[in-house]
Amino acid sequence: MHRILRINLTERQAAIEPLPATYRSLGGRGLTARIISDEVPPTCDPLGTQNKLVFAAGLCAGTSVPNSGRLSVGAKSPLTGTIKESNAGGSVAQKIARLGFRAVIVEGAAKEPVTVKIDRDGIRFESAAALAGRGNYQVIELLKNECGPGVGIVSIGQAGEMRLKAAAISVTTPDFHVRVAARGGLGALMGAKGLKALVLDDAGCEAVPVADPERLKVAVQAFTRGVLSHPLIGGLKAFGTPILVNMMDAMGTIVTKNYSQGRFAGAEQISGEHMAEIVAQRPNAKPSHACMRGCVIQCSNIYTDPAGELVVAGIEYETVALMGSNCLIDDLDAIAAMNRACNDFGLDTMDVGGALAVAMEAGLLAWGDAAAAVQLVAEIGAGSERGRMIGNGVKHTGEALGVTRIPHVKGQCLSGYDPRGLKGTGVTYATATMGADHTCGNALPSPANPGYDPAASSGQAPVSQFLQRYFAAVDSLGICLFAMVPPLDMPELQQHLVACVAAIVGEELGSDYLLELGGAVVKVEKAFNDAAGFTSADDRLPDFFSTEALPETGQIFDVATDELDSVHAD
Amino acid sequence: MHRILRINLTERQAAIEPLPATYRSLGGRGLTARIISDEVPPTCDPLGTQNKLVFAAGLCAGTSVPNSGRLSVGAKSPLTGTIKESNAGGSVAQKIARLGFRAVIVEGAAKEPVTVKIDRDGIRFESAAALAGRGNYQVIELLKNECGPGVGIVSIGQAGEMRLKAAAISVTTPDFHVRVAARGGLGALMGAKGLKALVLDDAGCEAVPVADPERLKVAVQAFTRGVLSHPLIGGLKAFGTPILVNMMDAMGTIVTKNYSQGRFAGAEQISGEHMAEIVAQRPNAKPSHACMRGCVIQCSNIYTDPAGELVVAGIEYETVALMGSNCLIDDLDAIAAMNRACNDFGLDTMDVGGALAVAMEAGLLAWGDAAAAVQLVAEIGAGSERGRMIGNGVKHTGEALGVTRIPHVKGQCLSGYDPRGLKGTGVTYATATMGADHTCGNALPSPANPGYDPAASSGQAPVSQFLQRYFAAVDSLGICLFAMVPPLDMPELQQHLVACVAAIVGEELGSDYLLELGGAVVKVEKAFNDAAGFTSADDRLPDFFSTEALPETGQIFDVATDELDSVHAD
Repeated sequence: MHRILRINLTERQAAIEPLPATYRSLGGRGLTARIISDEVPPTCDPLGTQNKLVFAAGLCAGTSVPNSGRLSVGAKSPLTGTIKESNAGGSVAQKIARLGFRAVIVEGAAKEPVTVKIDRDGIRFESAAALAGRGNYQVIELLKNECGPGVGIVSIGQAGEMRLKAAAISVTTPDFHVRVAARGGLGALMGAKGLKALVLDDAGCEAVPVADPERLKVAVQAFTRGVLSHPLIGGLKAFGTPILVNMMDAMGTIVTKNYSQGRFAGAEQISGEHMAEIVAQRPNAKPSHACMRGCVIQCSNIYTDPAGELVVAGIEYETVALMGSNCLIDDLDAIAAMNRACNDFGLDTMDVGGALAVAMEAGLLAWGDAAAAVQLVAEIGAGSERGRMIGNGVKHTGEALGVTRIPHVKGQCLSGYDPRGLKGTGVTYATATMGADHTCGNALPSPANPGYDPAASSGQAPVSQFLQRYFAAVDSLGICLFAMVPPLDMPELQQHLVACVAAIVGEELGSDYLLELGGAVVKVEKAFNDAAGFTSADDRLPDFFSTEALPETGQIFDVATDELDSVHAD
Repeated sequence: MHRILRINLTERQAAIEPLPATYRSLGGRGLTARIISDEVPPTCDPLGTQNKLVFAAGLCAGTSVPNSGRLSVGAKSPLTGTIKESNAGGSVAQKIARLGFRAVIVEGAAKEPVTVKIDRDGIRFESAAALAGRGNYQVIELLKNECGPGVGIVSIGQAGEMRLKAAAISVTTPDFHVRVAARGGLGALMGAKGLKALVLDDAGCEAVPVADPERLKVAVQAFTRGVLSHPLIGGLKAFGTPILVNMMDAMGTIVTKNYSQGRFAGAEQISGEHMAEIVAQRPNAKPSHACMRGCVIQCSNIYTDPAGELVVAGIEYETVALMGSNCLIDDLDAIAAMNRACNDFGLDTMDVGGALAVAMEAGLLAWGDAAAAVQLVAEIGAGSERGRMIGNGVKHTGEALGVTRIPHVKGQCLSGYDPRGLKGTGVTYATATMGADHTCGNALPSPANPGYDPAASSGQAPVSQFLQRYFAAVDSLGICLFAMVPPLDMPELQQHLVACVAAIVGEELGSDYLLELGGAVVKVEKAFNDAAGFTSADDRLPDFFSTEALPETGQIFDVATDELDSVHAD
């Protein structure tokens, strides 16, 4: 796992390089951040040939650490212009690790779409003419049939080929469902590079080496036992991430009607609990599903239609919030249909959901009109003008339609948590190095931390700063963030995880390891953004969050700008 | 002329305030820059209620100084996010001055469209329900019939009402043709404020006071005589600004096929010389026309169809270049039709022309397909999705269609001069305080200055810096830039103009007056942009100008970034 694979698409050449010593302790987001920072001019055109697309396995990838198979995808973002890392589950990161690589760097651009196949014996460049113009589901089916059931596939659909700014990158699960590195328009960059798919086959590869297997075994057991003891995990397994719907609705912070309300009358209809009832009645549906090997939570799900045909696996809270409550749509089947279309075309459901809602605000379709929304999402893949508009995300759509209330930071749609009631999350939206993104530090209340008031006007910056560093470390280790929520409430689990990493790399790590690692990652990212021309003026929420109160609670976002700026001050 | 009129549209209130002492020496762009800088938060949403729209008369408005009736319109730009001033001829600035105002500040936003009428007796707010949804030509006709032939009208068409980012503001000439404050999307802000039209009637007003009328008379004569002696003036009068078509084509710097060529095979067909031939044959057409009282150049024209029906007055070089050569369209009648549609809907022909060309590059319509382009421009007013896309300008359209070669700086389309052959102009595009804008300092070669090489890779920053300051002063005095090109070659005319200003304000002014005035204006604007979050990283041309050579000359834009940054260094 101490090598880098460098692929030049212009020249159709590949080179295997030793991992530089300075990168040895880096994986996942930490590694993509460093490579982008070292190799990509911060002011370059994100869709131009100077930009690079980096796929990196986390530092724990391929080991027995649970939930450690997230694949980090990094670049200068076509959506935000900032540095960007978006990660997804699936089987690919573990295959990259088993193939002996820490990262795959994609440079240049192919004139015609190509598929790149990587296995133990080498790298092949093949024409993707037969795949071009097809959605991810077909692409995956064709490549799986051609290359066998042991491969992992990274691909883009039509959205990436059209270079739409909400275009995502698809990553297959072991059973060939679709996971998505959704945010930041990285699919558009893959499209601009002419890379339709990467196929990774780790057949015949050795296991990933571990310095101290016995120590790892002990630490993994302690970590896993602790994670599974946390009350959140059972809920996630039973109801998936949409368990958050009723929780957020109860708090008055579920994003509703383009961020103009904090509660949704139809919340129960789109809740995780209701989804579980539907799934229980449908053939072939499953309430719980693992998106990667080694997942101990299995919060994904398999959602089928009444006849038992697969629709999507799985439906997540962000999709339900942005395409559901935010659009006043209370129909899970309609949301699932849009989710499937987005997975097929290769799109971020969040920016697309946000775009649908601003289009509703503009009168392009009626609030809550699920059929019209499904139709409009279908148009994205067809490349109609209004489809392209929606597929370019919430900012582009809002500007196209003259909407002044556009819920974005640095061009990226906010997530499903209203920042007026969750102000620590609001600080994260404003100041994260990659635009509005809850995965950078979602400051939800916790029974284990009764002293934290998520609606307080001050004291949020330290919370956000801590979480931004913590999750930057998590993303660098390649671990799913849900496995890392329990350690927030049970700090001893953090030390079990540090022991896991120490056992893998074979050196002692301090008790501050996670925050030091994450803090360094955020600093590298921030420096890139500074050089790209971003300033504290960009670290702000849209005005309307400060001037329009949530009707149910009267809350506004009133964290002082000085406090926002303090996140990156030290 | 020592008062400010402040209009609050939320409250439907108006207040007349004395001009603050610190503003006494400011007019036009200098005054809008100061008011925006003093009153508008740099990071506010440009379409939100914190932004203000300022109309200012130049310091010489209403006096006998020739060509001094330009109206400055200032705000934080909805297109670029920078501070913005866009100016136009017409009769309104002179009426503002005669009504005793230096500026009109529009604040807040009306819930329903309003017309504001200003005359000697006061200010009236009236519903614009009967005007809403109509184009400028109908709006002007209705208001002229209602208010009489002595009024001046500022209005927006459908584009401003839709808040499209290329929306412009229309200003009437004394004979009720349309002039346009075109750039920066200021029409979108007027639309967001619900202000459909301003009607100004200066009947019964006194002449604008002048401190030393006799001195002014002498200085005006000397200035005017000098301007008229310059060889450019005769050409402008005979052929209009499209006289530049053949000049730029000969130099290999006419923007062609979305800035991929520097010469256009159809240049002769769209040249000023050919336009003069057409105009000579058509009833009611005129090769020369004054857009304001006191114009000694009359470079506008009246372009009619073969039956003698008015199409547009007048056709300008930038329109011909962006909608003609840049789209490979060689048909002046088609260009005139698009020009009329843009004037009617209230749109910047430059950003719309740039958008058409990127749409051609994306394959949405064929290169040079004039009929399809005319049809597409017509759709903007109808508000179709593709129409809105084009009406949002070149950057938005390029992003919508996945085009990577987008000729913009800070979101605004470049003008009709290719920066690879005119590198001083390229420096201006990159560093001007309001995005790519030739009027901020177009560094054309001149026979009077044979030592200047516009294609040299270095030494361009001082030229651009000088011109940016010089024209910032010109815009502050309210003088048409064409009257100020001769004084570039004949510096003694600059002193005659300084004498004019001194006679008007009644104080002695130093010989460095123009550059000191302009330098201070640019500094205020730059400081606003800095506070809004812009950095030197934003002061760059798109990558492709540095990597793709013009095929005819092999030129690339290769001015060093250090040199670009030196423009604002002192």
